[in-house]
Amino acid sequence: MAVNHSVFDVKKCSKDMYALLKKLYPLTRSITGNGVRKTLDIIKEHIPITINEFTTGTKVFDWNIPKEWNVRDAYIKDPHGNKVVDFKKLNLHVVNYSVPVHKKLPLEELKKHLHTLPEHPQWTPYITSYYKEYWGFCLPHDQYKQLKPGDYEVLVDSSLEKGKLSYGEIFLQGHSREEILFSCYICHPSLCNDSLSGVVLLTFMAKFLKETKLRYSYRFLFIPETIGAIAWLSRNEKQAFKIKYGLISTCVGDEGCFTYKKTRSGNAELDRVVERVLIDAKAPFKTMDFNPANGSDERQFSSPGFNLAVGSLMRTPYGNYPEYHTSADNLDFISGTHLAESLEKYLEIAFTLESNRVYRNLNPKCEPRLGKRGFYRNLSSSDISLKESAVFWILNLSDGSSSLLDISFRSGIHFRVIKEVSDALVIAGLLRLKK
Amino acid sequence: MAVNHSVFDVKKCSKDMYALLKKLYPLTRSITGNGVRKTLDIIKEHIPITINEFTTGTKVFDWNIPKEWNVRDAYIKDPHGNKVVDFKKLNLHVVNYSVPVHKKLPLEELKKHLHTLPEHPQWTPYITSYYKEYWGFCLPHDQYKQLKPGDYEVLVDSSLEKGKLSYGEIFLQGHSREEILFSCYICHPSLCNDSLSGVVLLTFMAKFLKETKLRYSYRFLFIPETIGAIAWLSRNEKQAFKIKYGLISTCVGDEGCFTYKKTRSGNAELDRVVERVLIDAKAPFKTMDFNPANGSDERQFSSPGFNLAVGSLMRTPYGNYPEYHTSADNLDFISGTHLAESLEKYLEIAFTLESNRVYRNLNPKCEPRLGKRGFYRNLSSSDISLKESAVFWILNLSDGSSSLLDISFRSGIHFRVIKEVSDALVIAGLLRLKK
Amino acid sequence: MAVNHSVFDVKKCSKDMYALLKKLYPLTRSITGNGVRKTLDIIKEHIPITINEFTTGTKVFDWNIPKEWNVRDAYIKDPHGNKVVDFKKLNLHVVNYSVPVHKKLPLEELKKHLHTLPEHPQWTPYITSYYKEYWGFCLPHDQYKQLKPGDYEVLVDSSLEKGKLSYGEIFLQGHSREEILFSCYICHPSLCNDSLSGVVLLTFMAKFLKETKLRYSYRFLFIPETIGAIAWLSRNEKQAFKIKYGLISTCVGDEGCFTYKKTRSGNAELDRVVERVLIDAKAPFKTMDFNPANGSDERQFSSPGFNLAVGSLMRTPYGNYPEYHTSADNLDFISGTHLAESLEKYLEIAFTLESNRVYRNLNPKCEPRLGKRGFYRNLSSSDISLKESAVFWILNLSDGSSSLLDISFRSGIHFRVIKEVSDALVIAGLLRLKK
Repeated sequence: MAVNHSVFDVKKCSKDMYALLKKLYPLTRSITGNGVRKTLDIIKEHIPITINEFTTGTKVFDWNIPKEWNVRDAYIKDPHGNKVVDFKKLNLHVVNYSVPVHKKLPLEELKKHLHTLPEHPQWTPYITSYYKEYWGFCLPHDQYKQLKPGDYEVLVDSSLEKGKLSYGEIFLQGHSREEILFSCYICHPSLCNDSLSGVVLLTFMAKFLKETKLRYSYRFLFIPETIGAIAWLSRNEKQAFKIKYGLISTCVGDEGCFTYKKTRSGNAELDRVVERVLIDAKAPFKTMDFNPANGSDERQFSSPGFNLAVGSLMRTPYGNYPEYHTSADNLDFISGTHLAESLEKYLEIAFTLESNRVYRNLNPKCEPRLGKRGFYRNLSSSDISLKESAVFWILNLSDGSSSLLDISFRSGIHFRVIKEVSDALVIAGLLRLKK
Repeated sequence: MAVNHSVFDVKKCSKDMYALLKKLYPLTRSITGNGVRKTLDIIKEHIPITINEFTTGTKVFDWNIPKEWNVRDAYIKDPHGNKVVDFKKLNLHVVNYSVPVHKKLPLEELKKHLHTLPEHPQWTPYITSYYKEYWGFCLPHDQYKQLKPGDYEVLVDSSLEKGKLSYGEIFLQGHSREEILFSCYICHPSLCNDSLSGVVLLTFMAKFLKETKLRYSYRFLFIPETIGAIAWLSRNEKQAFKIKYGLISTCVGDEGCFTYKKTRSGNAELDRVVERVLIDAKAPFKTMDFNPANGSDERQFSSPGFNLAVGSLMRTPYGNYPEYHTSADNLDFISGTHLAESLEKYLEIAFTLESNRVYRNLNPKCEPRLGKRGFYRNLSSSDISLKESAVFWILNLSDGSSSLLDISFRSGIHFRVIKEVSDALVIAGLLRLKK
Repeated sequence: MAVNHSVFDVKKCSKDMYALLKKLYPLTRSITGNGVRKTLDIIKEHIPITINEFTTGTKVFDWNIPKEWNVRDAYIKDPHGNKVVDFKKLNLHVVNYSVPVHKKLPLEELKKHLHTLPEHPQWTPYITSYYKEYWGFCLPHDQYKQLKPGDYEVLVDSSLEKGKLSYGEIFLQGHSREEILFSCYICHPSLCNDSLSGVVLLTFMAKFLKETKLRYSYRFLFIPETIGAIAWLSRNEKQAFKIKYGLISTCVGDEGCFTYKKTRSGNAELDRVVERVLIDAKAPFKTMDFNPANGSDERQFSSPGFNLAVGSLMRTPYGNYPEYHTSADNLDFISGTHLAESLEKYLEIAFTLESNRVYRNLNPKCEPRLGKRGFYRNLSSSDISLKESAVFWILNLSDGSSSLLDISFRSGIHFRVIKEVSDALVIAGLLRLKK
C-alpha cells in the first residue's frame, strides 16, 4: 500500500470532510435510536458499511442491550407559557435517555432536574443517564439564574422501549488475516470534536483504503461507545484475536497538536509506528500512557480477557479542552483543514504499518560497491546525502533482526526515505525481504 | 494484617518511645558486657525476647567471639589531683574496649591516648578499639587545649576476660514460613539516634505485630553490630534462607527526612514497597544505593554467601549529621514525635508487604457493569473519583501478572486505596486472589 | 599486562611520536602506490610488521583491487608560463587518483577540474576519485579567484596501472586465541590528524605491547581505508571471528577532548572499558553512537556478515573540525603531547581489558576479619580510605557474576584501585580468579 501524496488533495478532502460533519451534526444521536440509524445511512452514502443490530435485552458479557430511546420533542415553558428551553433548537438541552414526562412543577422542584456549567455560564452541558431512569434538562447557567419562581411546564416526549441497538461495520480484506481495527463512536448528539470528528475521519479513511491493495486486513467500526464495543466483542469473541492493532478515532478536528494515547503495554509496534509518523511530521506532539479509568473503547478492547493493542490518536484529548461535552464543541470549534491533516496522519500510520518489514542484506560481508550501482557519489568532495546515508544504515542493520522502523529510529532518518531506499536496494539486488 | 490507624495513638506512642530511650541512654553498652545484658532486660519488660549468648572464643565464620569487656570506673586526674575526665559523668569518655591501666604519665605521653574533635571543640567523640588492645580517653577539644604540662594519673578499671556475647531475639509466627527480618544494634553506649533509636522502634514494632494476625513470619534481632550479625548468621546458617526481606533500623529519631538505603540488588519487592510507602506519605525522601563499604549489618546479611535482600530505613543516615558518633547525639537530638512517625512508616511497610498480592479479574472480557454494583456514578455529569479510578485500574491490570503494588505504581494511586478497593471488589465477586 | 607509569615517559614519547609523524607527513600516499610502501618501510624501522600485497584485479567480496596509482609530477601553468599550482609543494594539490593529462585549455574549461573551499579561502581541500577516472586540482579559493582568463597548461604525470595494494600487519601472540584488533589507515597524503596520527599511535602502541606478557593476542593493521579493510577481511574471512574487540585509531593528535565512537551494539565490554578509562582520567569526554554512514573501517568490520565489536577512540572526530580534509590539518594542528596522551589512553584500555576478570570471594559468608590481615584500620576514629572501600566492594560483589569492571562502575572507584586491591586480596587468600 502506498498513499500517493499527489493524489491526496488536502483542500478537497478538507471541504468534503467538513461537509459530512456538518450534515451529521444536527442529528439526535444516542447509544440507540433513530438518530444512530440516520447517521449510519449517511455514512453508507460514502462507503458500503454493513448495518447490524442487537435486540434490547440481549446479554453481552456482563451487560444487557438497553431499551431503545427516541425523543420527538422536549421543552420547558415558564409560568407565562414561553418556551425557555427547547430541544428542537439544540438536542443537548435534554438529558440523553430522559424518560417521558409531562407536568407542571414549581421552580424549586424543577431545579433538581436542571444541569448547568457555572464556570462557562453561556454553554449548555451534555449529560447522559443511560442506566438509571431519569429525566432532566441542560441549559446555560446565565439563563438558569434568571428563571423566576412559579410553576413551569416540562415536556419530554420520548420513548424508552424494547428495540434495537444499531452499528455499522466495513471490512477490507488484505493479503494477511491479521487485522488493523479502526473504531469510532456514533452515540453523541450535537458535538463535533468529540465523537463526530472521528466518525468523519474513518469514513474517509475507509474510502481511501478500499481502493488500495493491502497487506493487512482492515476493519472499521461505527458503534455506540462502551455498550457498542462490548456488544461487538461479545458477537465476535472468537475472531477478535485476529486484531493485531487498533486505533480509536476521536477529537481529531480541533487545532491542538496531536496526542497519542498508547496501547496497554505501551511498547507495541503500533506505538512506535505512531510515534515515528508524528516525529517525521516535524511538529510538536504529545503522548499519554494507557489509562483504563479515562478513555474510550480501548478500555473494552484492552480489557484483560482480550488484551488487544489498541491506542488512540487524537488532537486535544477529551477532557483537556473546556468545550468538551458542551454546546461549545460545535461547528466553529473544528475545521476541515484539521480534519484533513488528521486523516493524513492516519493514512501515514497505515502506510507505515504496511511497509514495516524486515529485510536481509544479500551482500553482508563488508559494504558492496555502491558507486557503480549509482547509490553513492564518485568524488569525495560533496557531503553525504540523506539517501546515501539511508543506504548505509539499511545495509548495516538488515541482518534479519531489525525492521525498517527500527532502522528509521536508530538512524533518525524519515521512515518514508528508509522505505524508498529499501525498495531501490531490493531492485538493485542488494536486499531481500526476509521470509 | 492491618494497622488500624485509629488505634495507633501517635501521642502516646511518642511519649512511651521517648521514655524507653531515656531509660536506655545512660547504660554503658559495648559489643559484650553487662550494659548489653541490662539493655536486653529492659527490652524484655516490653516484649518477650529470648536472650541468648555466645562464649568467648567460639568460632563464627572467619571470626572468634571476643573477650567480654566491662568497665567499672575510668578517669584522668590532673597534676593537682582534680578529675578532669570522668567516665561516670559520660561513658563516651573512655575508648570502648579499653584495657585496664592505672599509672601516672606526663601530658605529652598521655596525649597519644586522647581523642578529640577539633571541628566541634565542645563535643566528645565516640571511639572503639575492639580488636586491638589499647586504652584511651575521649574529651572535648576545648578542654584538651587547656591541659597544662605535668604528670597525670589515668585509671581504666576495666576487665577484658573470657565471658559471653549476649543478644536478644523474638520470632512471630505468621501463616507463611517466609520471614521478614528487622534488626537493630545494641552495642553503642550513650548515643541516641545512632543505635538506640532503632532499638526502641523495633521494641514497639514487635509489640504491635505480636497482637496481629500475620501472613509472613517476623523476626526481630537485638544484636551487637557486625560481630553479632556474624554470630547470629553462623548459628542460623541453615535457616537464614527463609528471610525474604529485612530492614536494619537505626537513625530513626532525628528530624531529618526519611532516607531509604536499598537492598543489594536494588530491585527487590521490598525496595518498591518502601518507596511506595514514602511516596504515599507525600513528604520528600531520599534513597541511597546499597554500599558494602559504608553501612550496618546489611553488609553481613547481604554478603554474597547469604545474599539476603536487606535494606535500611533511616531518617538522616549515619555519617550524614555532624552529631554522629559524638556526645551531641544525645536526648536533645531526637524526639518522641520523630520516633513515632518512623514507627508508623515501618508498620506501613509491613502492612504493604502483607497486603501485596496478585488478583484475578473474574469478569475479564470487557468492563463489568459497575453502576448497578455501586462502584460507579449513574449520571455522566460528575468527575470520576479516586476510588472509581482505582476500580478500573485494578480490573484492567488484574490479569494474573500485576500485584497490587504494581497497580499502585502504574496508576499513581495510593496503595491503601488500591488495597481497600480490591477488598471491596473481592466481596462483590469481581476479583479473586490468585492461587 | 601492566603499563608501568614510571616507565611511560610522556616527554620522550611525545618527542618520538612527533618526529615519526613529521617524517611520514610529506609522503604522497594513496590507497595504493609507492607512498604507501615508503610509509610501511618507515613503520618497519620501529616495529617488525609484515608487509603484504594484493594484485590489481583480485576479487575481494563485491570489490576488485584497483589499479596502482603513482604520480611523479603535476602542475598548472598560467598563460604566462608561471606554475600557479605545484604538486611538488603540496601533494594535496592533485586530486588523488588523477589520471594522466597534459594539455592546454582555457580557464573556463579548466575550472571544471578545480576544487576549492570558499568558506576557508586560504586552505587547499583534499579530494579523491578512486573509482571514477578523472583528473583535477585543488587550490585555495583566494588563488582561484585571481586566475585570469587565458589558456592554461595542465600536467598530471601519473600512472594508473596493474600493480599492487600494500598493507602492513603485526600480530602479538598472547595467552588467549582471542584477539584485540587495532587498525589505522595509511592512505591519506599530507594530512596529520586524520589518518597519520593514528598510524603513529599504533606504531608506538605495538612497540610497547611487544615487550609485554599478554593475556589477549593483539593484531595491528596498517591498511588503506575501506578497500584495505575489505581486502584484509576477504583474505582472513575464516579467522576474523577471533577478533573479540577492535579500535580504529585516527584523529588522536589534536587538542580536543576525547571522543569515543561506540561499537555496533553499543554495549560491548569494550564500550564500558573505554568509558571507564575516560571517566578515571577525570577530564571531560564525549561518546558517539555507531554510525555506518559516517566512519572509517569499523563500517567493514561491523558489517552484518562479520559483526565485530569495533569502536574508535579519537580526540576531535573527522568532520567535526574545519581543518579536516584540508591543508590546514598539518603539523601545526597536532602536537606530540596530545599524541602521547592519546597513546596513554590506548594503553590504559589494553590494560583494563587484560585485567578485567571475574573473581570469587573465598570467604563469602559475612565479611572476613580484615583488620588482622592489614586491610582495615583498627581504631574507629579515622575515615575509611578508598582502598578499604574497594576491599568491601570487591568482596561483596565477587560472587562469580561481577567483573572488576562491573565493580569499578558500581562502586565508582577507579579501575586501577580495584585491580590493585583485588591482587592484594588474592595474595591474602581471600579471593580467587573464577575459572
